[in-house]
Amino acid sequence: MTEQKITPWTVEAEKDGEKMTTINYDKIISQFGCEKCTQGLFREFQEATGKPLHRFLRRDLAFAHRDFEKVIECAKKNEEFFIYTGRGPSSESMHLGHAMPFIFCKYLQDTFGAPLVIQITDDEKFLCKNITLDNSREYGRNNIKDIIAFGFDPDLTYIFSNFESSHVFMENILKTSKSISLNEAMKVFGFDESTNIGMIDFPSKQIAAGFSSSYPFLKKNMLCLIPCAVDQDPFFRLARDKCKALGERKPASLYLGLLPDLQGTNRKMSASDQKSAIFLNDGPNDVENKINKLAFSGGKETVEEHRRLGGDPSIDVAYQYLRYFLEDDEELLRLKEGYEKGAILSGEMKAYCIRVVQQFLEEYQRRRSEVTDEVVEQFKSLDKFKANLNEKLSKFKI
Amino acid sequence: MTEQKITPWTVEAEKDGEKMTTINYDKIISQFGCEKCTQGLFREFQEATGKPLHRFLRRDLAFAHRDFEKVIECAKKNEEFFIYTGRGPSSESMHLGHAMPFIFCKYLQDTFGAPLVIQITDDEKFLCKNITLDNSREYGRNNIKDIIAFGFDPDLTYIFSNFESSHVFMENILKTSKSISLNEAMKVFGFDESTNIGMIDFPSKQIAAGFSSSYPFLKKNMLCLIPCAVDQDPFFRLARDKCKALGERKPASLYLGLLPDLQGTNRKMSASDQKSAIFLNDGPNDVENKINKLAFSGGKETVEEHRRLGGDPSIDVAYQYLRYFLEDDEELLRLKEGYEKGAILSGEMKAYCIRVVQQFLEEYQRRRSEVTDEVVEQFKSLDKFKANLNEKLSKFKI
Repeated sequence: MTEQKITPWTVEAEKDGEKMTTINYDKIISQFGCEKCTQGLFREFQEATGKPLHRFLRRDLAFAHRDFEKVIECAKKNEEFFIYTGRGPSSESMHLGHAMPFIFCKYLQDTFGAPLVIQITDDEKFLCKNITLDNSREYGRNNIKDIIAFGFDPDLTYIFSNFESSHVFMENILKTSKSISLNEAMKVFGFDESTNIGMIDFPSKQIAAGFSSSYPFLKKNMLCLIPCAVDQDPFFRLARDKCKALGERKPASLYLGLLPDLQGTNRKMSASDQKSAIFLNDGPNDVENKINKLAFSGGKETVEEHRRLGGDPSIDVAYQYLRYFLEDDEELLRLKEGYEKGAILSGEMKAYCIRVVQQFLEEYQRRRSEVTDEVVEQFKSLDKFKANLNEKLSKFKI
Repeated sequence: MTEQKITPWTVEAEKDGEKMTTINYDKIISQFGCEKCTQGLFREFQEATGKPLHRFLRRDLAFAHRDFEKVIECAKKNEEFFIYTGRGPSSESMHLGHAMPFIFCKYLQDTFGAPLVIQITDDEKFLCKNITLDNSREYGRNNIKDIIAFGFDPDLTYIFSNFESSHVFMENILKTSKSISLNEAMKVFGFDESTNIGMIDFPSKQIAAGFSSSYPFLKKNMLCLIPCAVDQDPFFRLARDKCKALGERKPASLYLGLLPDLQGTNRKMSASDQKSAIFLNDGPNDVENKINKLAFSGGKETVEEHRRLGGDPSIDVAYQYLRYFLEDDEELLRLKEGYEKGAILSGEMKAYCIRVVQQFLEEYQRRRSEVTDEVVEQFKSLDKFKANLNEKLSKFKI
């Protein structure tokens, strides 16, 4: 058996021979030293906001956090905070796994009317992948359109490419760089002697982006909430360690589970492998074919055996996707129990999943088709905040 | 006896008990693997340019190079090249040691009418010194005025701060970063585990600045000549190693000797030690006092002994400064021989040196007083090249 490995650049569940394994989130929590999310925490959040909980919160898909109770305090006191997340543009189109933080940020922005900054790490992808800088920047430009299509408020959302715009917060980047020793970076990120020097210094850009003083339109020392995939925690753990020395406020974070690869729950969906991912620009037939042909099934070898012994939803990829995308809790429970009892077959689970994902993508792609270059410019503009932010922030009420 | 140590951040001659030592330039050449300059090379240069040789060339103060013969080829063929040098702003005012590359660049620009780029590494000084970023940037702004006062042509000279403007050539910086492994950077620059990650990646900025494609106003693949202090060679040695992979032309370099510290020829003048340096804004009395009181003498203990045995100009700081600043070769030889024979006393050598340095600074300070903020903006502007460079480059003739 080999150990589970989770870094910003590798996600692998432990291996146990041929057996399908799943990512062990409790192990991540104890390894990374973050807090486990509880339904009690989320009830408090619901009380503070007075609004329904997102399905990611109801289902523990947001499973770990750092200082999320500080966000609840802000909500209670009606205090401003800002949301920060990012995207490393490694492919022409984003896939369903990449969508998670953005679906969740949309919910948070709708709930709080909070400012949102989204960092496109086109520099990092060039540095760590075997792609050209032109490719990385082109992917970034397309991914910005993909992101806008989640429905963010252009007056409250700033999307920037590191390549184009990280000089806007160069001061904080340099101060962060100076505060981190090579030794720390090697330990936290697993860098070694073969790592290129651009990657070694890259974390300072992702860390500095979580400080409100990095953005001319935000007040100093606003709380930052970072909703993201859990593999990004090393950046923000280190960010929190450095805040005191840098005179910045510790960012809070909320970590989402990693949407599984089509072929199994032991790794996350990957854009570089066509058999791993459903892309946000896949058509209904692609969705049907991919899920039918590729999605790993938690069912038994034969229908008879499945009817008699039942299936295992914890490793059934179609069921796992439904946890992320199906809104109706009762229906989800019915599917789970039916599958475990053998009343629902793998083909039926897949058919359900196909419908739900097709519907999500149909709505998404309609919005995506409306994202023009002019809309992109609106999101990348810093100037709009001068005119709009104060007015908009008066909406910042619960 | 301890070994000589030369890196971009440390310059120490070998130590031999209490005895005053000097930097061993032949050792640097063999350690760094660059070429020794010869008078034959400079005669060829003079023939190609048809103009008098600078005193730094006549006296082997430009003692080593890489590919300087390529510059001579350009001169012969009347081909364009550009000059690049830099300045790490570690103090409010620059000192005489810092002046060397700029004195020489002025000569080169006058000789060839070549475009010159000057990089202010305000980011690096913040990263490697115990100073604030505000200090480093403020020093940078002052140092730019100090540099302009050497008399560069504003239409042909681009001066930029890394903090403000390195995003202009971010593409080349990232490509350079990706091409250098941590292992290489540690070996070439002596970084260790305690080095901050900003410093680890800094070399990519100094390396990329030597590629013509970094500047929108230069033609691709123009030859770059880098006149600088020899302690900067590690950057350009590595730059040359990476050129093939990056599709860039190998920069040529010409290395100047390091102006000695007032207190001895065993280390270079340092701005952080008031007893080490003569600053460019020192008045005539400062010059007189510093040289009289602090300059290490190669003379003997008593006048009688000096008259009988003679002094040692190789460790006499006043004589060494005269090598850099006194134009008249015959006069310099007369001083050297007179000192060796004991005919010239240390006090006389110092008095001569004081006059020459006072005169240099008087003229320099007059020009410095004329450098306004508007003049600075002219040197920092990229736009001027659109209008002026082609016209100016028609002057690019020998």
